[in-house]
Amino acid sequence: MCVYVFRHNHGGADVSELIIGVDLGGTNVKTALVSRDKKVLGKDSRPTRAEEGPEAVMTCMAESVEAVIAQTGARRDDVLAAGIGAPGPMNWQTGVVYSPPNLPGWKNVPLADEMTKRLGFPVYVDNDANVACYGEYWLGAGQGAENMCLLTLGTGVGGGIVVFGQLLRGIDGTAAEIGHLKVMRGGRACGCGATGCLEAYGSVTGMVRTAVEGIESGRKTILTDWCKGDLKAITGKMISDGIEQGDEFCRWVMNETGVWLGIGISSLINLLNPEKVILCGGMIAAGDVLFDPIRKTARELTFEVPANRAQILAAGLGADSGVIGSAGCALARFESGI
Amino acid sequence: MCVYVFRHNHGGADVSELIIGVDLGGTNVKTALVSRDKKVLGKDSRPTRAEEGPEAVMTCMAESVEAVIAQTGARRDDVLAAGIGAPGPMNWQTGVVYSPPNLPGWKNVPLADEMTKRLGFPVYVDNDANVACYGEYWLGAGQGAENMCLLTLGTGVGGGIVVFGQLLRGIDGTAAEIGHLKVMRGGRACGCGATGCLEAYGSVTGMVRTAVEGIESGRKTILTDWCKGDLKAITGKMISDGIEQGDEFCRWVMNETGVWLGIGISSLINLLNPEKVILCGGMIAAGDVLFDPIRKTARELTFEVPANRAQILAAGLGADSGVIGSAGCALARFESGI
Repeated sequence: MCVYVFRHNHGGADVSELIIGVDLGGTNVKTALVSRDKKVLGKDSRPTRAEEGPEAVMTCMAESVEAVIAQTGARRDDVLAAGIGAPGPMNWQTGVVYSPPNLPGWKNVPLADEMTKRLGFPVYVDNDANVACYGEYWLGAGQGAENMCLLTLGTGVGGGIVVFGQLLRGIDGTAAEIGHLKVMRGGRACGCGATGCLEAYGSVTGMVRTAVEGIESGRKTILTDWCKGDLKAITGKMISDGIEQGDEFCRWVMNETGVWLGIGISSLINLLNPEKVILCGGMIAAGDVLFDPIRKTARELTFEVPANRAQILAAGLGADSGVIGSAGCALARFESGI
Repeated sequence: MCVYVFRHNHGGADVSELIIGVDLGGTNVKTALVSRDKKVLGKDSRPTRAEEGPEAVMTCMAESVEAVIAQTGARRDDVLAAGIGAPGPMNWQTGVVYSPPNLPGWKNVPLADEMTKRLGFPVYVDNDANVACYGEYWLGAGQGAENMCLLTLGTGVGGGIVVFGQLLRGIDGTAAEIGHLKVMRGGRACGCGATGCLEAYGSVTGMVRTAVEGIESGRKTILTDWCKGDLKAITGKMISDGIEQGDEFCRWVMNETGVWLGIGISSLINLLNPEKVILCGGMIAAGDVLFDPIRKTARELTFEVPANRAQILAAGLGADSGVIGSAGCALARFESGI
C-alpha cells in the first residue's frame, strides 16, 4: 500500500479538493483518495465480507473510506464526493443496486443513499465496467482519446464506452454490454439467455468451454492429466500454466479465445471508430499469446481507416482502473449535477 | 412535387432563415428547402446524370438548388447554408468525396468547396446514411430520442447513430458502419473484405444470395421458373413478387433476412440502449414479413430492459430522410461552426 505526502502543491492546483473512489468487488473492496487534479494520494484494500450481506459490506466500505482518509491525513471537509463502482444490474441515477450475482443477499439496495448517510458527503454509484472504462479514459491508457472502449476479461466480458468524452450509458443505463455482441448465429448459449454472444467465447468461462470441447473432440493435452479426467475441474489458470509448459493445445485454446475477441472488437471498431480499445482483467496476463490473435483478427475484419486508427492496448492502471474511475465518475457527476 | 406558401409566420418562428438539403444518389438528385423551424417549404427531384462525371453532377445539384429556391419564392439572402448527403467514402470535415462506387469518375472531388463556390453560401457534405439518420432524429420517427440508430436496407446495409443528440462519427468520421457488424464467424465473404458481416446477409444482395443458396440446395420455388434457370438473374423484386404470389420459399428467404437483421440489431441494442432503431430503404416495403422476424429475433437475443425500450420502426420520412437530414446536418454544423 502506497501512502503519498498530502497537501503539497501540485503545480498550483488545489489538492484540498478530494474525491474518493471505491471498487466494490465480490472478493475485495478497494478504495483510493484522488485529488481533483488527478493525483492518487492514498489507497486501501480489504476483504469485502460479501457472505455477511449488504450491511456488513457497506460497513466495510465505510471503514475503508475512513482508513484512506486517515492514512493520508486528509480533512473530511475537503472531500467533495465519493464514487462506488459496483457490479450490476443497477440504476446508476438512483444508486439502487438490484441483485448482483456475486453479492449474496443483495436485493434493491439503495447503495448511494445508504453510503451518503454513512459518509456525510455525496456518494454516486456506477456500473463497475463503466467506471473502469472511465478510469482508463481519465488517467490510464485512454488519456487523450475522445472515443474509446474497454473490455473487462474475466468470468464474463464486461464493457464500457466513452464517446464525446462521456460514458455512453443509453436511455436506461444498460449500454456498453460489449460481452453481448453477437459473433455467431446459433452459437453457444450465453448466461444472458441469448446465443452466440462474445462472452460465451471470449471470457475465461468461454475459454474453458473451448478447452473442454477440444478435449471432448479428441485433442491431446496436459490438461487431461491435470484435471484427472474431470473436465469440469479445468480452470483458466490451468490453461495459462499449460501454455508455460509448452502445451500446444493450451496455446491453441488461448489463440481461439483471441480470435473470438478480435471478431467482437472488429464490430466495435467499425461501429465506433475509436482511438483506443483497452483490455483489462485477469486474462490479459497471458500477454502476446492473447493480444496477437486479437489484433490480427480485428485488423483483418475491419475497414482500413478505423483499423489503422484503433490501438488495442492493455489497461494502463492495471487492477486500479475501477477504483480510480469510480473517483473520476463521481467528480464528473458532482460537477455536472447528474 | 409539393409547393408551400412561403414567408408566412409559423407560430412566431423566423422562416426567413432557410437551409437547403441535397440528397446525392447514383440515380436521382433530390433537394429540399427547409426553414430553421423544421418546415419543409419545397422540394425538387431530377436525374443525377452520374454517367457524365463530377462536373455535370455538380451542375445538376446547383440547378436543383436554384429550382427549389425559385419554386418557393425564397430570397437567396435568406439561405444560411446547404448540406449534401453523398455516398462514401469521404471526409465530412473537408468535404472531399473519395471514390464512391456509384458515382463513376469521382476521385477526391472537393465537393463542399466546389458547391460553396457555385452557390455562394456555405455547403457542408456528409455521409448519406448519417444524414438519413439525422433526418429521422430531427424530423422523422426518431424525434424525441436522445439515442437512436438507423439502418438503410438496400444493395448494402448503411448505418447512422445518434447519441447524446449528436451524430456519432468517430475520430476519422468512419463510425456507424452497422452493415459491418459481425454476425457469423467464418460466414459469407463481404464486399468490405471481411467475412460474416451483417451486410452479406441483411441487404438485398444478401437476401438474393440466401435465395440462390436455397435453390442450389434443392428448395422448390417459383423463382426457378421466373429466372429461367439463370440464378444470377434473381432480384430482390422477384422475391417480393414471389411472396405476393404465395411462394413459401420466398417468404422463408425474407424471414431469414429478417433473422439476420435481428441478430445485428440485438448487438446494437445491447451496445447503445437506444430509444429507437429505424429502418429505411427499399426493402422495408416488405412490411411485416420482414419486420416480424427482425423484432422477434432482436427481442430474443437482447437483455430485457433495453429490448423493452427499443422501438424498431420504419422511417417516418419515407424516402426523404436523406434530403431533410442533409438540411438538418447543415444547420447543426452552421450553428456549431464545425
